[in-house]
Amino acid sequence: MGKVICAGLGPGDPDLISVRADRAIRGARQIAYFRKKGRAGQARRIVSDMLAAGVTEHAMEYPVTTEIPFASPEYNRLLAAFYDDWTTRLAALAATDDIVVLCEGDPLFYGSFMHLHTRLQGLAEVEVIPGIPGMTGCWNVVGRPMTWGDDAMTVLMGTLPEPDLTRHIAATDAVVVMKTGRNLPKIARAIASAGRMDDAWLVERGTMPNQRVTPLAQADLEACPYFATVLVHGNGRRPQINPLADAEAAE
Amino acid sequence: MGKVICAGLGPGDPDLISVRADRAIRGARQIAYFRKKGRAGQARRIVSDMLAAGVTEHAMEYPVTTEIPFASPEYNRLLAAFYDDWTTRLAALAATDDIVVLCEGDPLFYGSFMHLHTRLQGLAEVEVIPGIPGMTGCWNVVGRPMTWGDDAMTVLMGTLPEPDLTRHIAATDAVVVMKTGRNLPKIARAIASAGRMDDAWLVERGTMPNQRVTPLAQADLEACPYFATVLVHGNGRRPQINPLADAEAAE
Ligand SMILES: C[S@@+](CC[C@H](N)C(=O)[O-])C[C@H]1O[C@@H](n2cnc3c(N)ncnc32)[C@H](O)[C@@H]1O
Ligand SMILES: C[S@@+](CC[C@H](N)C(=O)[O-])C[C@H]1O[C@@H](n2cnc3c(N)ncnc32)[C@H](O)[C@@H]1O
Repeated sequence: MGKVICAGLGPGDPDLISVRADRAIRGARQIAYFRKKGRAGQARRIVSDMLAAGVTEHAMEYPVTTEIPFASPEYNRLLAAFYDDWTTRLAALAATDDIVVLCEGDPLFYGSFMHLHTRLQGLAEVEVIPGIPGMTGCWNVVGRPMTWGDDAMTVLMGTLPEPDLTRHIAATDAVVVMKTGRNLPKIARAIASAGRMDDAWLVERGTMPNQRVTPLAQADLEACPYFATVLVHGNGRRPQINPLADAEAAE
Repeated sequence: MGKVICAGLGPGDPDLISVRADRAIRGARQIAYFRKKGRAGQARRIVSDMLAAGVTEHAMEYPVTTEIPFASPEYNRLLAAFYDDWTTRLAALAATDDIVVLCEGDPLFYGSFMHLHTRLQGLAEVEVIPGIPGMTGCWNVVGRPMTWGDDAMTVLMGTLPEPDLTRHIAATDAVVVMKTGRNLPKIARAIASAGRMDDAWLVERGTMPNQRVTPLAQADLEACPYFATVLVHGNGRRPQINPLADAEAAE
């Protein structure tokens, strides 16, 4: 009897994988990962120097097609069938051996694996190994504290409508916007409307070999990759250091 | 010439430390960590089985005193002097050797180290190794996806005034509240006012040996430790799976 182990890969640098996930990946005899048809897949690329000889690979290729529009009910049905199919296959594999599913960042934070996680309940034992979220890698790449004292931090998806983005950004201190890509011009307009353009950074492929950090005001808004995150740092809402919290932190 | 290396420790389980931080901690000849006077210190406890023989330890003890109220200007002056003092001492140590500063979670996310990070600029080379934030450990302990699709997630400090907490919670999908402890009754009232009590969890000492997970509605609000986080999971604002984002994730 094996189990499905979902290993969080962190933001991209293999050195930022947890000790537990590193051990699971190096010891795996079976791995699975999502990818777009015809692509290597980001998750697979992160572990390329870590896999044991003779590992069996299962590429879970999204049912992308140019014939059906992405937002249509047909496409959603296709995608649900895809997740159902891989749920069955992973559960069958886990009947005899552990299978390690690779997942960028942290698996339970806006991750595709969650669609399998939900479906696998009751069909196989599932273990999730947390990872450093992509956003955490990104603010470390900028190299400045993300949040101070009483700051509120809001995480938003670039897929939200512009008025929602603007409203959320105006109501908070620190901001993370993920799922950027072709949404970047809209995200930049929302950040500008909320008066935060001068504090905003664009981090493309944070901690990966080809990473890039640009003040958002200087970024090319029309050429943003999918692995890119917009950050607005907090500045500490209250002027003083919060001494109680600091003292308690050392408990 | 050495440097100050701040190693993110993640939520508490030593197995969740990154490969890079694990290597830095095990190889350290000098370590430093914050603690409250008279306590072992949570950071020190996490690495207790990892330190090399003969490591030199620097306990940075907060200037806690019962004579001066926490929020007073005197206390803030005392705390600033404490950070200034350790900045000088760490910079002096780094002149000849690497020194590894231990930091719970991710160092640049509401971390005490940030006060040293800012002061050390220009005095010593500083390297920060990201960690899994405490909140990420906590939602993995609950074992349910934290955020789906277009969910907005807001991170709040329990030190905020109740009306601010309520307003933020009412305006978002998924919620994280840190710095709980004696703020828990106020946090619970804010969550109830925002109508989210039935979705809320309290995670105490997530991923540590004595962790506890309780629906907030059933928690003892008067006995909450400092290492505790309140979570309200998102449910995906839009009913459909976001197929474009999923497909692009596999790039
Ligand atoms: C579907 S979400 C998956 C998030 C992942 N589970 C995590 O914890 O980061 C994908 C989005 O995460 C962000 N992201 C993840 N890793 C990143 C990195 N290394 N650099 C920049 N953005 C990243 C991008 O905004 C991307 O569109
Ligand atoms: C000063 S903040 C430091 C946060 C840290 N830098 C991080 O990335 O998690 C301390 C707060 O983090 C939260 N926290 C950190 N680790 C935790 C854990 N293992 N379980 C529950 N809460 C935790 C608690 O709310 C605590 O009050």
